[in-house]
Amino acid sequence: MKAEIIAVGSELLTPDRVDTNSLFLTEELNKLGIEVVRKSVVGDNRDDLSATFHEALEHVELVIASGGLGPTEDDLTRETVADLLGRKLQLNKEILQYIEGRFRQLGREMPAVNVRQAMVPEGAEVLENPRGSAPGLWIEDSGHKIALLPGPPRELKPMFYEQVLPRLQRFASSVRMFHRELRVAGMGESALEQRIKPIYTRYADVNTTILAAPGEIQIHLRIWTDDGAHAQKTLDEIVQSFQLALTDRIFSLDGSPLEEVVARILTMNGATISAAESCTGGLLAQRLTSIAGSSSYFLGGVVCYSNELKTAWADVPTEIIKTKGAVSSEVAIALADGIRRRVGSTLGVGITGIAGPGGGSEEKPVGTVHVAVSHAGGVKERGARFPGDREAVRWYAAQLALDMVRIHFLYNGGEPPSRGSNRS
Amino acid sequence: MKAEIIAVGSELLTPDRVDTNSLFLTEELNKLGIEVVRKSVVGDNRDDLSATFHEALEHVELVIASGGLGPTEDDLTRETVADLLGRKLQLNKEILQYIEGRFRQLGREMPAVNVRQAMVPEGAEVLENPRGSAPGLWIEDSGHKIALLPGPPRELKPMFYEQVLPRLQRFASSVRMFHRELRVAGMGESALEQRIKPIYTRYADVNTTILAAPGEIQIHLRIWTDDGAHAQKTLDEIVQSFQLALTDRIFSLDGSPLEEVVARILTMNGATISAAESCTGGLLAQRLTSIAGSSSYFLGGVVCYSNELKTAWADVPTEIIKTKGAVSSEVAIALADGIRRRVGSTLGVGITGIAGPGGGSEEKPVGTVHVAVSHAGGVKERGARFPGDREAVRWYAAQLALDMVRIHFLYNGGEPPSRGSNRS
Repeated sequence: MKAEIIAVGSELLTPDRVDTNSLFLTEELNKLGIEVVRKSVVGDNRDDLSATFHEALEHVELVIASGGLGPTEDDLTRETVADLLGRKLQLNKEILQYIEGRFRQLGREMPAVNVRQAMVPEGAEVLENPRGSAPGLWIEDSGHKIALLPGPPRELKPMFYEQVLPRLQRFASSVRMFHRELRVAGMGESALEQRIKPIYTRYADVNTTILAAPGEIQIHLRIWTDDGAHAQKTLDEIVQSFQLALTDRIFSLDGSPLEEVVARILTMNGATISAAESCTGGLLAQRLTSIAGSSSYFLGGVVCYSNELKTAWADVPTEIIKTKGAVSSEVAIALADGIRRRVGSTLGVGITGIAGPGGGSEEKPVGTVHVAVSHAGGVKERGARFPGDREAVRWYAAQLALDMVRIHFLYNGGEPPSRGSNRS
Repeated sequence: MKAEIIAVGSELLTPDRVDTNSLFLTEELNKLGIEVVRKSVVGDNRDDLSATFHEALEHVELVIASGGLGPTEDDLTRETVADLLGRKLQLNKEILQYIEGRFRQLGREMPAVNVRQAMVPEGAEVLENPRGSAPGLWIEDSGHKIALLPGPPRELKPMFYEQVLPRLQRFASSVRMFHRELRVAGMGESALEQRIKPIYTRYADVNTTILAAPGEIQIHLRIWTDDGAHAQKTLDEIVQSFQLALTDRIFSLDGSPLEEVVARILTMNGATISAAESCTGGLLAQRLTSIAGSSSYFLGGVVCYSNELKTAWADVPTEIIKTKGAVSSEVAIALADGIRRRVGSTLGVGITGIAGPGGGSEEKPVGTVHVAVSHAGGVKERGARFPGDREAVRWYAAQLALDMVRIHFLYNGGEPPSRGSNRS
């Protein structure tokens, strides 16, 4: 089966918006053996919308659209598709009651405009939206399947899993896509390419994509086949070869982000963590606490921008700041040690640096960062000079800190080593 | 003039690649008064490519495509467009010599496949590519203009500026796009729609897009006209009417995010801020410090997940936690007061809540959040019950906190009010 994806919304035709729903949808469709042959972005304009749906239906069996299901005048997907298929819109009382109920729960009355969201083309199936007021629609028409989904990803994704996927599985072919995502930190794209190219070029039936993301590289392996056992065996083989080639630089074998991997490691080791951040301004704490259940390992953190607070909150000696400067390996170490002792956590992380755009000097240019990880048996510190803007430098610094925590456990299994040899 | 943008390349139809050339092209086309009405991504497949070009040419005068001009078998843009327009491909000796020269410069012989890049449709103009081997093409056909550009951004961008822009300027109309972006917090999409619909529907020549983002609504106003003075006057008029209708709910008249607006307000008022966060886990500090120069107003923050740290770092009395619970208006207020006093900042923000997925109860379900903003003259507190997952609840809570800081300055101009009437 072939599919087209249509993203609806004039805001997606501006220079500052990009449609990302289609990436999620493509991944899920590929898993079912459905190939995406075209993606379109079209504005909230009846003629353009109608032409785009019309043309898609001429070429493929399955059309999935996102957006344009809201309650306002410029949300035209419902009406346009009904028109195109020659179907009338009918008021669906159940949906209306559901939307009214949602507003009641929030202590508000339903505005009159929301009635539009309860209008359903004749013969369409309603896809419930427990996370928003706009229901989705599933329409089958002369051999075509059309799914109309809401634009916000947090509404679209669960609706796809709960409502669209079961319907698509009825049409799925025996050829499926098998996929692995590995993630690598602390290594450049070309160095990585050099190490793994001799491996993946041996597998002609495997599609390998190497994608550089901020502070990490993502490696995607994909096989399209009807032989699942062979696919899994081949993928296992490649992953094992990659592990030999990249050793501890691979932090994820299942596409999990670094904070999730670190959360798992901390939980597995029954360890706790605290953070004293300067240039990252809370980004490390925010990433560590973005994982559900983080209160079991993340005890607390401080964001100490000023020198006074570095001393008041993490006991950084004022002499060190005076003699070495606030951005120095010594201050990073003192922050890590200080916060760990204050909080009583297994590990303490200290980060100090210059995120820019101001504050750089010849000796310590923008991008200079020091990160330390302290434990009862010692402390590890690393300095780096990161490229890019403020956002990039802060992200790289948090990424380095998380990776240092991961490496800590990788080499001593959660036990503090007997020697604190790395302490300066 | 209306345009469509086509990105060519099967790699752009995988789940991990996104076409960004179209963002650059849209920005440049809009500057010339050219509206982009549709964007497509299509694979290296002759039928799909041909259909996409055919359909685009049926709707618009200008089609700009990127990619598919390489030397290999799967690069089909040249051939497909020539076929579609009924034009023969001819070997262009100048291009061939240029490509051969490029390879010589690199000390290599030109591979035979590269001859394909020297094939040019009859009547097409060649767009030089000093940064790669694939030349671009400019074709005019029955009133249509077609630009075929290479895929790599570092080749596409200079080619656009040097070769495409001068050609487009000949056709550029005096009609340009004028744009405003307003942002609104603390209001639902339909409530907002009800208030502003009577206003914007009066302006038939203005395109209004209402976009719900997490914790805020973005309103885009666009006019296409050759009368700049009229456009600015009309936009001013609408914005003023919106301000009357939405009063203090509009936080941005220029599309700035809330943290940037708050940063500006703090700087303007010579005020400083500190934060004691529980459920947001550093998100507020991270957003406040994401703005360049934040060290002048953000003094410091603590992330105190545990009750002990709430007391140790922000002097929250243990009795309050015991009697009212860690998630309560009283604890939010104590966090705000405590961190402000500890740090000595103008304002202190306290946030406590249940981000989920665990930790909820009947009385205090997941999504329950209390935010307090303390100043020398008093404290304001607000409770809320936010919908959505962990990420959403945390974002909404940070958004509410930022908005409360904004509102604080809106109503007392940076001066602490004489009465602390809201203190509980």
